[in-house]
Amino acid sequence: MTTHAALVSRAFGSDKIYMSDVDDSIKKTVEDVSSRWGGRSDFKIEIVRGWSEMIANWKKDGGKVVHLTMYGIHIDDAISYLRRENRILVVIGAGKVPRQMYELADYNIAIGNQPHSEVAALSIFLDRMFRGKQFEKEFKDARLKVIPTEKGKRVRELS
Amino acid sequence: MTTHAALVSRAFGSDKIYMSDVDDSIKKTVEDVSSRWGGRSDFKIEIVRGWSEMIANWKKDGGKVVHLTMYGIHIDDAISYLRRENRILVVIGAGKVPRQMYELADYNIAIGNQPHSEVAALSIFLDRMFRGKQFEKEFKDARLKVIPTEKGKRVRELS
Repeated sequence: MTTHAALVSRAFGSDKIYMSDVDDSIKKTVEDVSSRWGGRSDFKIEIVRGWSEMIANWKKDGGKVVHLTMYGIHIDDAISYLRRENRILVVIGAGKVPRQMYELADYNIAIGNQPHSEVAALSIFLDRMFRGKQFEKEFKDARLKVIPTEKGKRVRELS
Repeated sequence: MTTHAALVSRAFGSDKIYMSDVDDSIKKTVEDVSSRWGGRSDFKIEIVRGWSEMIANWKKDGGKVVHLTMYGIHIDDAISYLRRENRILVVIGAGKVPRQMYELADYNIAIGNQPHSEVAALSIFLDRMFRGKQFEKEFKDARLKVIPTEKGKRVRELS
């Protein structure tokens, strides 16, 4: 799940992902994807210990924190003011999230109020924030590029 | 991942999920979610052996098949004609999908042409198809219902 969350972050226009689970294999997977499909210099992964300190520092620097949870305010009721924020840290949790997180967040936002998936929540959140334009992003220095096609696979090799 | 895909299917307005991996525990998890959060009678899970026969039967009955793949036509270039279809079977695969699937599909559709996640792809696909209205759906006979809130969790018990 963390690999998928990281790949969604990259493909949907985020600048960086912070992971509190120490896992170098995920970092390597995403870096391999970026080497092949582009954007290696644009998308960073950082492994952090102490997620609550990381969040506190983010807020101290003027950034806002959006926690995605099925208990929050529905995205479509919040999107107009979320789009006005400059720097957003999105927090997703697998399984039960500590109560503290709901307090630390500037916004607790629901992607619908039914249980589903943190990967789905992240993807809809980013899609709403970027209005679908994230899919037009050019990923720099790609070695491979998909040529969209009706059947099968077409890939252009760029280097 | 399959559990997440199943929960997204349910929460994002699908009628049914067919799983070709035989796994009763996922079925049970989703049924438990439906018992608690509603819609048990509206959302079905069926375990199928022989996914290609299942797809062939679906097409014989007049249904269309949409295969989500990073190599396909971008969703935003296809959505207007996809919305005109009546019965759609969405196919997602974990890992490498047999070449045959690209031929069987009526539409090979990409949620952007970068690698990310089949759960993210499914969620964006359904969100585009249902124009975000899936989140307004009432889930019948729920025992629990979230009251959206800015901090913490508020849940109404209905029975």
